[in-house]
Amino acid sequence: MQTIKIGIITSSDRAAANVYEDISGKEIINTMNEYLKSEWDPVYKVVPDEQDVLEKTMIELADQEGCCLIVTTGGTGPALRDVTPEATEAVCQKMMPGFGELMRQVSLKYVPTAILSRQTAGIRNQSLIINLPGKPSAIRQCLDAVFPAVPYCIDLIEGPFLEHNPEVIKVFRPKKK
Amino acid sequence: MQTIKIGIITSSDRAAANVYEDISGKEIINTMNEYLKSEWDPVYKVVPDEQDVLEKTMIELADQEGCCLIVTTGGTGPALRDVTPEATEAVCQKMMPGFGELMRQVSLKYVPTAILSRQTAGIRNQSLIINLPGKPSAIRQCLDAVFPAVPYCIDLIEGPFLEHNPEVIKVFRPKKK
Amino acid sequence: MQTIKIGIITSSDRAAANVYEDISGKEIINTMNEYLKSEWDPVYKVVPDEQDVLEKTMIELADQEGCCLIVTTGGTGPALRDVTPEATEAVCQKMMPGFGELMRQVSLKYVPTAILSRQTAGIRNQSLIINLPGKPSAIRQCLDAVFPAVPYCIDLIEGPFLEHNPEVIKVFRPKKK
Repeated sequence: MQTIKIGIITSSDRAAANVYEDISGKEIINTMNEYLKSEWDPVYKVVPDEQDVLEKTMIELADQEGCCLIVTTGGTGPALRDVTPEATEAVCQKMMPGFGELMRQVSLKYVPTAILSRQTAGIRNQSLIINLPGKPSAIRQCLDAVFPAVPYCIDLIEGPFLEHNPEVIKVFRPKKK
Repeated sequence: MQTIKIGIITSSDRAAANVYEDISGKEIINTMNEYLKSEWDPVYKVVPDEQDVLEKTMIELADQEGCCLIVTTGGTGPALRDVTPEATEAVCQKMMPGFGELMRQVSLKYVPTAILSRQTAGIRNQSLIINLPGKPSAIRQCLDAVFPAVPYCIDLIEGPFLEHNPEVIKVFRPKKK
Repeated sequence: MQTIKIGIITSSDRAAANVYEDISGKEIINTMNEYLKSEWDPVYKVVPDEQDVLEKTMIELADQEGCCLIVTTGGTGPALRDVTPEATEAVCQKMMPGFGELMRQVSLKYVPTAILSRQTAGIRNQSLIINLPGKPSAIRQCLDAVFPAVPYCIDLIEGPFLEHNPEVIKVFRPKKK
């Protein structure tokens, strides 16, 4: 059976320089542990907010590591150093605008500054890449919103079958035609 | 008086190979018959999920056939062979992001996997091109949501005046300034 | 102390040719006067719907005039002469899709043709550029929706501190980490 690998990339100058601990990346790992019944291996990277480093890391996790899902945190705002959406777009063949739209809509229930998040998602070969915000509480809100569609998306790009924990998250797979 | 032509393009490898009947394209024709009081001629094509074939077909329906509206079905998901949005973007001068946003929002009321649809819309010269999902029930939900803005959009790009059936669909045209 | 400059660009062939008075640009200035307690100077331009003229004007207001915020009105529809979003995208380094999504969503409460608006926002260096619709009543609806996030956005791109009037508009700035 295929090992399920999920990539987690924290984009943060300060976390990469050990100025502070990366809580956001750990929040993603914890959330995935709660969501998934399948065995899975995290491939976890903390990188500075540099577009070329982000692109290289995404490509490595998709192409060499074979992660079916790559989740980023940080670097989605309007500031000069926020370049995660640009890196994502550069490495993906297909963009998935529905993810960013839904995540912003959900975050808008909490803060009006949710519209400042430029987070998006896309497909590189057989990997789904999703940008999450940097703030740990917003990470969980966004994942709760979009994860119900993630296992079916990975089915459609011919990745491994993700088995979820229905007591934690509801996941939707349409019946086969 | 100008003949009103509406293009319908089904993007589906299996329908193009006659593996199954194209129900989706027929659903669009039936819906348009219900919506419109104007006489109109369908220009109906079933093509495989190939970006170059899709682009050529859209261009033919817009430029040679003079369709004021071209509606596609299928090919909007994340799978390798889903390339309808890319073909649409390649042939349009202007993109209309509001169509995809609203259609995903409406579909989200039914299924959380609505965010996987990458459907969009755009303008090529005097043609409005709208991507619809492949599933017949989702086609009607999406058309009901966006069609109220379609006749005015076609007015703005100097196409023919579409007369609708107010008992079936409400259409909005702002008063002239 | 830094002078706060806000650019207002009306894109309209008829207003630029003095066929009619530009009410939309004035509506933006009035709204900003109501919103802001900070002293500010408008830099106000009325230009025809020409993409190169729009781009040059945006660049001038951002780079020479140093406007932290540039608000456009008009030119966001599907018609041939509507090119404001294209000009905005051409001069910005970062696009902010959340602004357009929220403005269309708010406008949809009033008119189903809101999906025809292609308005967007983006960042050029230290300037936030926001497209608003052309219609004066829609301008206020859209600004009321997105302005709560504008001062913090300008903080993040290292622009001046905008002080707002809390009796007119609620603005959100997250607490410093």
